[in-house]
Amino acid sequence: MKDNKTGTYTFVTEPFHVDFNGKLTLGVLGNHLLNCAGFHATDRGFGMAMLNEDNYTWVLSRLAIEMDDMPGQYENFTIRTWVENVYRLFTDRNFAIVNKDGITIGYARSIWAMINMNTRKPADLLSMHGGNIVEYICESEDCPVEKPGRIKVETKEVTETLTAKYNDIDINGHVNSIRYIEHILDLFPIEYYRTMRIRRFEIAYIAESYYGDELKFYKEETGGGEFSIEVRKDNDEVVCRSKVVFQ
Amino acid sequence: MKDNKTGTYTFVTEPFHVDFNGKLTLGVLGNHLLNCAGFHATDRGFGMAMLNEDNYTWVLSRLAIEMDDMPGQYENFTIRTWVENVYRLFTDRNFAIVNKDGITIGYARSIWAMINMNTRKPADLLSMHGGNIVEYICESEDCPVEKPGRIKVETKEVTETLTAKYNDIDINGHVNSIRYIEHILDLFPIEYYRTMRIRRFEIAYIAESYYGDELKFYKEETGGGEFSIEVRKDNDEVVCRSKVVFQ
Repeated sequence: MKDNKTGTYTFVTEPFHVDFNGKLTLGVLGNHLLNCAGFHATDRGFGMAMLNEDNYTWVLSRLAIEMDDMPGQYENFTIRTWVENVYRLFTDRNFAIVNKDGITIGYARSIWAMINMNTRKPADLLSMHGGNIVEYICESEDCPVEKPGRIKVETKEVTETLTAKYNDIDINGHVNSIRYIEHILDLFPIEYYRTMRIRRFEIAYIAESYYGDELKFYKEETGGGEFSIEVRKDNDEVVCRSKVVFQ
Repeated sequence: MKDNKTGTYTFVTEPFHVDFNGKLTLGVLGNHLLNCAGFHATDRGFGMAMLNEDNYTWVLSRLAIEMDDMPGQYENFTIRTWVENVYRLFTDRNFAIVNKDGITIGYARSIWAMINMNTRKPADLLSMHGGNIVEYICESEDCPVEKPGRIKVETKEVTETLTAKYNDIDINGHVNSIRYIEHILDLFPIEYYRTMRIRRFEIAYIAESYYGDELKFYKEETGGGEFSIEVRKDNDEVVCRSKVVFQ
């Protein structure tokens, strides 16, 4: 822990959380990152349970993960997380992923908004709790990976169509953020994972989808090993966009 | 811990591990049970890593889970596990699931075989490590739920067809045991989970399936709220059978 503005959490890579290469899947890593965000925010009085009481909730807007390696089965790893910036409507939370030998094997960036659960309108973060959220900004940590960028998908060809099922749905009745990641990774044939690995994964959450929604996945290659994906609902509304970079 | 033959492990119910009711999903509970089996066996010199060195591995044959309730989001819960019996080719491992208030909310039974990874033939458990596995049999715990029974599925009507994808595959290249549970639970419309809950879930693993396999799910109602499910591969081979009891 570099200073007390950073949260540090340790995990073990469980057998059902690794892929056929014996490496932690990106979906499970995403789940751990979001859990760490929750733990860290809760410790600072900005946790979901506390916010929900006041009818506010955090909404994940973007997530970008860049990895040199992934923890192997049964290996311990550590996630460090800190707040990089707080704006009026968004906050940037970063992560470092550290392997069992203490080597940083990746970083992640996330962007969050807070909304009022009744009006669905964004809250002014700088005025919450008397503006004390800015005290949690950490100056001492570095996150040397690109910020999430704009993702454009032009293809009109549907790669996959899935109907949102029971296990996709979270406590809010929405398809959960991690399930999108898994469904997107499942668009790639296993040969990709056999011969390459994902160096960078990016996702922008745009609209919610619900049980029974038919989700259409549009995927296009935009360069050597780089793919852009768009997920749309029945009514053609964009649900999320993602970028996957294999190397 | 009733005696030192029982392993006790505590978990917290994570936000992406609950369903729309805010209750832990059965798939995630199954994952925790199998992890506990692993922890407990490892502590006793019968863990996967150790067995793999000698070219042996545990194979889960059957799992039955019976629950009065499920832990809610953010709640702690405890799993106790112990070995009930050891036969030549199988061992029975049981579980109790205890909620945050110390109340036992469910039990599970599992049946395991050990196989030689080269020959795929079953090992004689009673002769492993000089027969010391029987020393781990626990007499003091009770598991007051029915043993896994025979499951028969007669319908010829396919309810769902899925192709095994990247996220379904484990380190052995097989569709992982937990994914079958999730796919089976996804066969039921959300109204079932809205108005009822699963009292008992049972699964018998019969053959392995692999990446790209087309899995056909046959589901039939066998009584009030009781369903039998069979999963078959392209070549019509049975992969697993399951029984789901709603109440």
